[in-house]
Amino acid sequence: MVLNDEYGHGGDVYRNRVRLDFSANVNPLGTPPEVVRAVAESAAHLAAYPDPYCSALREKLAAVHGVVPEEVVCGNGAAELIFQFAAALRPKTTLLPVPSFSEYAAALDAVGCETREWMLRRADGFAVTEALLSEITDETDVLVLCTPNNPTGRSVEPALLRRILDRCRETGTWLLLDECFLDLTDAGAEKSIVPALRPGDPCFVLRAFTKLYGMAGVRLGYALCRNGDFLRALCRTVQPWNVSAPAQAAGTAALGCRDFVDRTLRLIAEERDWLLREIRALGIAVLPGEANFLMLSGVPGLYEKLLKERQILIRSCANYRGLDEGDVRIAVRTHEENAQLIAALREIYGHA
Amino acid sequence: MVLNDEYGHGGDVYRNRVRLDFSANVNPLGTPPEVVRAVAESAAHLAAYPDPYCSALREKLAAVHGVVPEEVVCGNGAAELIFQFAAALRPKTTLLPVPSFSEYAAALDAVGCETREWMLRRADGFAVTEALLSEITDETDVLVLCTPNNPTGRSVEPALLRRILDRCRETGTWLLLDECFLDLTDAGAEKSIVPALRPGDPCFVLRAFTKLYGMAGVRLGYALCRNGDFLRALCRTVQPWNVSAPAQAAGTAALGCRDFVDRTLRLIAEERDWLLREIRALGIAVLPGEANFLMLSGVPGLYEKLLKERQILIRSCANYRGLDEGDVRIAVRTHEENAQLIAALREIYGHA
Repeated sequence: MVLNDEYGHGGDVYRNRVRLDFSANVNPLGTPPEVVRAVAESAAHLAAYPDPYCSALREKLAAVHGVVPEEVVCGNGAAELIFQFAAALRPKTTLLPVPSFSEYAAALDAVGCETREWMLRRADGFAVTEALLSEITDETDVLVLCTPNNPTGRSVEPALLRRILDRCRETGTWLLLDECFLDLTDAGAEKSIVPALRPGDPCFVLRAFTKLYGMAGVRLGYALCRNGDFLRALCRTVQPWNVSAPAQAAGTAALGCRDFVDRTLRLIAEERDWLLREIRALGIAVLPGEANFLMLSGVPGLYEKLLKERQILIRSCANYRGLDEGDVRIAVRTHEENAQLIAALREIYGHA
Repeated sequence: MVLNDEYGHGGDVYRNRVRLDFSANVNPLGTPPEVVRAVAESAAHLAAYPDPYCSALREKLAAVHGVVPEEVVCGNGAAELIFQFAAALRPKTTLLPVPSFSEYAAALDAVGCETREWMLRRADGFAVTEALLSEITDETDVLVLCTPNNPTGRSVEPALLRRILDRCRETGTWLLLDECFLDLTDAGAEKSIVPALRPGDPCFVLRAFTKLYGMAGVRLGYALCRNGDFLRALCRTVQPWNVSAPAQAAGTAALGCRDFVDRTLRLIAEERDWLLREIRALGIAVLPGEANFLMLSGVPGLYEKLLKERQILIRSCANYRGLDEGDVRIAVRTHEENAQLIAALREIYGHA
C-alpha cells in the first residue's frame, strides 16, 4: 500500500477517468476463464489459511522450469519478492542500469543500500551492452537486470547475459534478474538464464503471473534460485501466509492454459508489429520492444492530451531515471483498442 | 511462504488428514455470504492492478474507528504489517511478554532486533500485570502486547493498558499492540486503545479481518496509527500492490455485515462458556479465555491422540516460549463440533 499521492506507476484506473488503459502491461486478452473460475471457486473456502508451503503450485512450477520445488519460492506478486530479496541480502551497493522499473531502487533504498545507476544510452536504443561487464567489480553486491526491460522492452542478448552471470560468479555479485516479461516475447525460453544456473549460484530470477495471465489484481509472482541458504534467509523476511488461497488457485489453473498462452503470443506479436509500423509512419521515434509494450518519444503534453481529451491512459515515463518528459510507454492491446490509440495519435500529430 | 517443514502454526490442514479443525482461530460460522460474493465477483476483474491506496476500504475503516483515513494502513493480512513494523523501525531491543504469537519475534529477529522475553506467570493465569510497567525503560525500543493474547485468550485490563501507553510515551517506546482478536470478545470496543491515542503517539495497533469474518485465505489486515512519519516509513518497506483486489473487495463487503457479527459474538460467548464448563468438568485446567479460543493443560500426547485416532486437529502449544508439552489451544467452534471434541476428550480422559 502507498499513502495518498505517492504512487508513480501505470494502471491507476482508480484515480483517473479512463476509457482505454494502455498504461498497465497486462495481457490484452484479459484473464483465462480457467483462472477466473479458480478464483471464483476459491471464494467458497476462504475461512482456511492458505497453504504456507504453496506445495501444489511450486511442484507445477518446478516441472515447467526443470528445477526442483525447493528452488521455487512464491510471493504476493513478483514485487514482493524484490523487497524480500533486498531485506534478506541487505546489500551495501547495487549496480542498476537505468531507466528501469522503480521498485528495485525503492526496495534497495528501504534497506539502506546505495544504488549506483548506470545509464543505458539512448544512442544504443537503451540496450544493455558489453560495457556493463567492466562495471561489475568485487565491490558490487548486487546487479539488477530486467529482461526484457521495463519500460524499454529490450532484452539482454543470451550470450551477453551468460557472460554477465560468469562475471557475477567471479565477483560474488548477486544477480537479481527480472524475467517477468520474458514469457510475453517471441523467444521466451531461449533468453532465460534458468537453464544456465548451477547449484549455489548467486542469482535470483523473478517471474510473474500478473502480465501473461492477466491477473494483476490477485497478486502472484515467483522466483527461481539454486542457492538454498539464500532462499531460507529470504523466507524468514516474510510472514508464512503471504500467498493468498485465491492466488495459489489462480496460479495452478493458469499453468494449464497452453492455448490461451499461444493465442496471446500470436496476438501480441502481430499487434506489436502493427503498432510499430503505424507509430513509425507518424514519424514518432519508437524502440523495437520485444514484449507487450512499446516505448516511444512523444510530443510534450501527449500524456495529458490522451487522458484529458480522450480518456486514454498511457504511461508517462517522466519519473523514470534517464528518461525525458516526452518518453511514454504504451501497452500492446487488442487490434480494436490499438486502432483507437493510433487514430488518437494521428489526430494529435495532425495527420487526421 | 515458508520452505518445507519450517511451519509452526495451527491451521495446517494441507499436511494433515483432518476431519475437524480446532487449530485455527477462525469464525466458526465461516465467511459471510456477502464476502464470498464479493470475492467471487472480483474474479471478473483480475486483470487490473489493485488500488494501491486501498481508498474505499480505508475510508470505511476510518469511519468505524473514528479516525481519518490517513491513520489507517492496510496489509496482506495483519501478519505482513508485523514484518513491516519491524522493517520500518529496525529497533535494537524489544520487550515481549511470552507466551505469545511467534511472528512478532520472527519479524523482529529478521531485522536483527534482540527480543527480551518477559515470562507471564502460570500462577497469574498468564495475565499481564502491573509488574510489566517497571520493565519498560528508556532502553526499550519496542513493547509488543497482544490483547487478548494468543494463545492464552487473556486481555490486558483497560486501565493498565492506558498506564502502559503512558509509560511508553515517557520512555519513547513503540507499543506494537495486536488487537486482532478483540472484536471476538464480549467487550471489544471498551478494551481497545484506539480512543486513547493522541496525534504522534508511538503506538501501532494491529487489527484483522481474518478471524472475525472467516477470511484467512484471502489475506487482509490493517493497522491504526496516529504517527504520520512512521506510517510513511512503513509504507516504504513494501510494494504498492500488496493488498489484492479480492481482499479489498472482501474487506469492504465485510464491514457491512453487522448481523453476521452479532450472531458470531452470541455463538462464541455461548459456546465458549459451554466448553469451559465441560472441560472443567473433566478435571482439565483451562484458562478463562475471552476470545474464540481456549488454552488448556492436557495430558501428554493429547494432540497426537486427537489427530491420529480421530482426525481432530488442535493446536499444540509446545513450540510457544514459556509453555509445556501438555499445553494446547482449541478454537471455539459450532455446538455440534464442540460436542464432538468434548466427546473425544471424555473418551481420552476415561469418562466415557
